[in-house]
Amino acid sequence: MKKIGVLTSGGDSPGMNAAVRAVVRKGIYHGIEVAGVYYGYQGLIEGNIKDLQAGDVGDIIQRGGTKLYSARCDEFRTDEGQWKAIEQMKKNGLEGLVVIGGDGSYRGAMALTKKGFPSIGVPGTIDNDIPGTDYTIGFDTALNTVIEAIDKIRDTATSHERTFIIEVMGRDAGDLALWAGLAGGAETILIPEDPFDIDDMLERLESGRKRGKKHSIIIVAEGVMSGGELAELISGKTNVETRVSVLGHIQRGGTPTARDRVLGSLFGARAVEVLLEGKGGLAIGMKNHQVVDYDMTTAFEKEHDADMSLYKLSKELSI
Amino acid sequence: MKKIGVLTSGGDSPGMNAAVRAVVRKGIYHGIEVAGVYYGYQGLIEGNIKDLQAGDVGDIIQRGGTKLYSARCDEFRTDEGQWKAIEQMKKNGLEGLVVIGGDGSYRGAMALTKKGFPSIGVPGTIDNDIPGTDYTIGFDTALNTVIEAIDKIRDTATSHERTFIIEVMGRDAGDLALWAGLAGGAETILIPEDPFDIDDMLERLESGRKRGKKHSIIIVAEGVMSGGELAELISGKTNVETRVSVLGHIQRGGTPTARDRVLGSLFGARAVEVLLEGKGGLAIGMKNHQVVDYDMTTAFEKEHDADMSLYKLSKELSI
Amino acid sequence: MKKIGVLTSGGDSPGMNAAVRAVVRKGIYHGIEVAGVYYGYQGLIEGNIKDLQAGDVGDIIQRGGTKLYSARCDEFRTDEGQWKAIEQMKKNGLEGLVVIGGDGSYRGAMALTKKGFPSIGVPGTIDNDIPGTDYTIGFDTALNTVIEAIDKIRDTATSHERTFIIEVMGRDAGDLALWAGLAGGAETILIPEDPFDIDDMLERLESGRKRGKKHSIIIVAEGVMSGGELAELISGKTNVETRVSVLGHIQRGGTPTARDRVLGSLFGARAVEVLLEGKGGLAIGMKNHQVVDYDMTTAFEKEHDADMSLYKLSKELSI
Amino acid sequence: MKKIGVLTSGGDSPGMNAAVRAVVRKGIYHGIEVAGVYYGYQGLIEGNIKDLQAGDVGDIIQRGGTKLYSARCDEFRTDEGQWKAIEQMKKNGLEGLVVIGGDGSYRGAMALTKKGFPSIGVPGTIDNDIPGTDYTIGFDTALNTVIEAIDKIRDTATSHERTFIIEVMGRDAGDLALWAGLAGGAETILIPEDPFDIDDMLERLESGRKRGKKHSIIIVAEGVMSGGELAELISGKTNVETRVSVLGHIQRGGTPTARDRVLGSLFGARAVEVLLEGKGGLAIGMKNHQVVDYDMTTAFEKEHDADMSLYKLSKELSI
Repeated sequence: MKKIGVLTSGGDSPGMNAAVRAVVRKGIYHGIEVAGVYYGYQGLIEGNIKDLQAGDVGDIIQRGGTKLYSARCDEFRTDEGQWKAIEQMKKNGLEGLVVIGGDGSYRGAMALTKKGFPSIGVPGTIDNDIPGTDYTIGFDTALNTVIEAIDKIRDTATSHERTFIIEVMGRDAGDLALWAGLAGGAETILIPEDPFDIDDMLERLESGRKRGKKHSIIIVAEGVMSGGELAELISGKTNVETRVSVLGHIQRGGTPTARDRVLGSLFGARAVEVLLEGKGGLAIGMKNHQVVDYDMTTAFEKEHDADMSLYKLSKELSI
Repeated sequence: MKKIGVLTSGGDSPGMNAAVRAVVRKGIYHGIEVAGVYYGYQGLIEGNIKDLQAGDVGDIIQRGGTKLYSARCDEFRTDEGQWKAIEQMKKNGLEGLVVIGGDGSYRGAMALTKKGFPSIGVPGTIDNDIPGTDYTIGFDTALNTVIEAIDKIRDTATSHERTFIIEVMGRDAGDLALWAGLAGGAETILIPEDPFDIDDMLERLESGRKRGKKHSIIIVAEGVMSGGELAELISGKTNVETRVSVLGHIQRGGTPTARDRVLGSLFGARAVEVLLEGKGGLAIGMKNHQVVDYDMTTAFEKEHDADMSLYKLSKELSI
Repeated sequence: MKKIGVLTSGGDSPGMNAAVRAVVRKGIYHGIEVAGVYYGYQGLIEGNIKDLQAGDVGDIIQRGGTKLYSARCDEFRTDEGQWKAIEQMKKNGLEGLVVIGGDGSYRGAMALTKKGFPSIGVPGTIDNDIPGTDYTIGFDTALNTVIEAIDKIRDTATSHERTFIIEVMGRDAGDLALWAGLAGGAETILIPEDPFDIDDMLERLESGRKRGKKHSIIIVAEGVMSGGELAELISGKTNVETRVSVLGHIQRGGTPTARDRVLGSLFGARAVEVLLEGKGGLAIGMKNHQVVDYDMTTAFEKEHDADMSLYKLSKELSI
Repeated sequence: MKKIGVLTSGGDSPGMNAAVRAVVRKGIYHGIEVAGVYYGYQGLIEGNIKDLQAGDVGDIIQRGGTKLYSARCDEFRTDEGQWKAIEQMKKNGLEGLVVIGGDGSYRGAMALTKKGFPSIGVPGTIDNDIPGTDYTIGFDTALNTVIEAIDKIRDTATSHERTFIIEVMGRDAGDLALWAGLAGGAETILIPEDPFDIDDMLERLESGRKRGKKHSIIIVAEGVMSGGELAELISGKTNVETRVSVLGHIQRGGTPTARDRVLGSLFGARAVEVLLEGKGGLAIGMKNHQVVDYDMTTAFEKEHDADMSLYKLSKELSI
């Protein structure tokens, strides 16, 4: 293998740049060339591919977003689009590809591998929802962004003795809500993995109030319902007045935390090693405190499990 | 004067605690006693008043929110409520009152002064909308919270080449939108002080696009319209797809910036001096780089002016 | 078991308060009483012990430092001091103790256990140097504090094309230097676990310079040598002018990160469970992504290993 | 005037990039061309000058340091060097120059103006020590960096009841120490503008201790003495044990605050206007809440005054 490519795809997440830097420099360290593919699979099809030197990825480890840009690409979902991409890569001398993104991005990498072009998936998403890895790049930063927001909102909740509903990202996965709720000292956490029980929630609010709790924070993952819907539900059943805060897009950005930079570095480097070993169709991850590579299909077939012990602990500690 | 009280009222703002600390310690420094009134005017009526020592306001200068709590109080709008409050203050030996809050809170202080109880207003609100002072306590912190959010959102806007609408606080005053838009490098800023011109805005977006600008940030003060309404307006007239982020309550909280702590300290201390001089019905402010006191009615009768030179400059620099 | 105590000892670390909160609330959840011991072992001997309710540990999860205070205590190293402590605990009805601190603090817990008073160790130190656990409470926060400092210093290093030496904490353990160096994109990392080779370091600086690298960041753990000593060594052997920054005590403080709050919560809760099972002399930790408890002597007898794969990777990526 | 240049000189300060952006875009807005001079006066002599478009200064308003780099240049202090610089500027078609930096940098701008090349000074330094302006670009960011450090150190000071000495930048000017000390709630502030009185300081420490104050923070500007020297002085006269933290270079870097970005934008834009009016030898500043321009010699002849009312207030409030 003499030359490989790297792209970022799907929603951006903090730490992606650390992974890009690691792919480029680890490749150069092993004596191969590395090219950056701009705008994800769209750029792959269009041949938006440029050689990168060590210096080109200097001063990016601390930046949010992705220096390679990202884009949606419907064409790449077709066989024709995938063959175009392979053609472009061959034209540029690439023999392997590292794809940094979520499970949607992995499907593209799998399709390329099946067509004979070895591709490796690196988990870059704030949702932490990729089966086979305990952590994804960007989750830790998003989590800290959320708890900073909770800390700020708590100032007002405490000062005015109010109940706040904070809606966080997470369509199918409750990790962000769960960790943030535990770390933020939230009274109630609602996640997609647990059936929503309005009565249980209201009972918790009520019993907290009886114990003298004068303010309350409820974290709801967007996959359960929107913050606004929850507020209506509550006001329909009680006289508790709530305020809603939808954290939205700030959760995707920002300077990556140390951990996301380290994770991005470890994962990007391992992806290069795996390609150099002549493998494709693998995903990189962290499992039981070890960097691992595993069959990418695991990421599609298994289900991501939220750590329900955190959920249980949160309930015990928010008394 | 032997003893004074201090309360916080209305929405909380970062730096209120610095002002409370300054009132307490400046009073003690001049040999008088100081009592804290809890839960704003509600607490005043109910006699929720406690003596404070220098140590009681230690370790609070860096905290968001207000250690004296805040609350709404309809009863205080009545003559009867105001007389109750004065009675409670006399019972507690108070001879003057410092009220930290927005212009709504000032009306209460004015009413007390007119009834013979000297009260001073200290401007504590993130909106920076009190006539007679260039800055209010909390504005600088809220502003920095907003630009941190803009910086985060720009990561995604840049990575995906998207147009983002960011809705910030400001029902009647555009200061937060204006300063944040200029400091955040926003392409467009919409403030209540300037009539909204959809065509001008769309033209700016379009001309930016023609010059090769691939992402765009629009800041809209809530007083103009909601971010969602703006997104609909834009999608109804163009094929530009926008994303909306409503910053909401995070703007009120957080560790105060250095400036808000200094402002709170200066204002709280001056309020005590003014009371010691036997005055009431005055508001404290910063005017032309000087701490000033002025007739509180100015805060009701004059209009707050946004700094339209910032508005003009922002348009010139966002080319 | 009807009542237990909790104390913090040794240097403070961010997240200790989350652990204290977890001990108190987990205990209450299981129907037992919990008392806080103030000022570490010193307070234990003096009987500075107070019952804590759930509300007493509210609003502390986000605070740095320790609400139970810490102190040195020579007397507790003696048999007599330890018996005094046990007497005080019995007087207060305590039947078990949770000690949050570093390995020095563990020795005290071990001594109490050996004298028949079951005590559990929870790892609270920024150094991440306790054998038997992959992470300690406070390490993640300290790490992020260090990389924020590196990011700031890099602004100047880049603008002026200078070489900076940044001295970080770590007398015997290089974890902080190692992780921060990798996450901060440092060119060189010096840790106590690897013999210092001045020539290798100078060669790296020189070869970077030849490749066009115009600024450089060197991270040195205090256990290797001071930043000032290193600067002298370099200026004695080359004409490279360096600037030194000693991060010092800022590394111990600050709002804990999400991870340190979660870790503190998990560890504090497990410590209570272990005591309720009638055990003593155990340490709590995180091993291979699982919360574990293990014989406390492990923490004394084994050596903490830095993750040398990070060290190797850092060298490969800083080309 | 058809084309102007802009350079940054001396120590970098956060917000310089906002000023560079404003110069470039304001110039373009008025229909002239703008070139960036790289590496300060050194680059001016060497002709390291490149045309800048609006897009070249996009995405830099939020970056610390200076994208134009900075450097020392002894040659420029000579007449010959200055003539070389003018020659280079003429060769590149420049007719005016904006210099962003401290008073040392202003001397260069003055020399160029005297030789017939109109140059304008924009105050970019964290020291806030330029006569004629109330604020310099970078001061607000440095100030907030310092109080974040104080907040962190206070966690440990409080937890261990210790006395901390924090050394901050400021060789001749005490503004940073003064504002940070007031905003950080320091017990004692030592600035170059006030003769150091060891006995007064020790008395304050002692009386605080008697009132029950168990920890204490002393801020010392480097111009008074080093933190280490102060610690020795104290330990030589009392049995108070102190810890020293030297904040150092982190004070220069970091994402600029909103205020420094606004200041940079206002100042850069005004500098262009002044050049377009055909003027030279002026400095830009903020005076009494207004952007002003004034004879640059003021910056050399007058003395910067620290705001001693803050000093007095700090003493009153730290009781």
